[in-house]
Amino acid sequence: MNEKWMREAIKQAIKAEQKDEVPIGCVIVKDDQIIARAYNQREKKQISTAHAEILAIEKACKKLGSWRLDGCELYVTLEPCPMCTGAIIQSRIDKVYFGAYDFKGGCLGSNTNLLDVKGFNHYPEVEGGLLKEECASLLTSFFRKKRKSKK
Amino acid sequence: MNEKWMREAIKQAIKAEQKDEVPIGCVIVKDDQIIARAYNQREKKQISTAHAEILAIEKACKKLGSWRLDGCELYVTLEPCPMCTGAIIQSRIDKVYFGAYDFKGGCLGSNTNLLDVKGFNHYPEVEGGLLKEECASLLTSFFRKKRKSKK
Repeated sequence: MNEKWMREAIKQAIKAEQKDEVPIGCVIVKDDQIIARAYNQREKKQISTAHAEILAIEKACKKLGSWRLDGCELYVTLEPCPMCTGAIIQSRIDKVYFGAYDFKGGCLGSNTNLLDVKGFNHYPEVEGGLLKEECASLLTSFFRKKRKSKK
Repeated sequence: MNEKWMREAIKQAIKAEQKDEVPIGCVIVKDDQIIARAYNQREKKQISTAHAEILAIEKACKKLGSWRLDGCELYVTLEPCPMCTGAIIQSRIDKVYFGAYDFKGGCLGSNTNLLDVKGFNHYPEVEGGLLKEECASLLTSFFRKKRKSKK
């Protein structure tokens, strides 16, 4: 079941790639249904906060009419950055599944683990590495093409 | 000069208070001019990301037509949370001035310091405690009133 939702997040990442955005996708699931889907749109929107997770969280809040996303699970193809990890904490999301590990920006264990910091209002459960090869290969092939096109 | 901009952030915090939101305000300054003003709107919007800093950053990006806020300074009345600290990093903001310290959620030194983590793409300069008494008193009086109204 978890892989099924991650595959939906991957579909979102592919949409990002088709629009020449770094291919990262996200879905939010509640009661066994997707309530929000989004992909990275930083370049198109030219807004620094337009990461897949932030856009999905905002859609989910609008859908539920609440800033509290209790009972929700978030699936994202890349380990969240500090901003997105913070947004997950702020949203009280129950559980995060991420695909590829990010040893540079990842804040759920790879570079640092924000959930090790005491005192925040909420701590989601986390499972990393779900379909990580597929998620990572989208990113590596995107950056490979980018480098080639620059030559 | 810095106090002048923080007073503008405080004006935004007062707007939040008037709308029964936790009184936190933010302005972003570039070339000696305010390019974005915002206040916390989490309750009204019912969106978990609607913190003063996120809303101000999004306005500044739209104003400049760029997700890169190079050359910008951000003034906020309360030390940023993990999400907002992350958004500041993602936006490449030059310098952050914050007012009151937040020993629970503050991620620029009070609870933790996200800028101590190596490997991110950007590290802003930070100055904390600017007009901290005024900034903090807005918050303490807001929560005092809230507690009284619940009795």
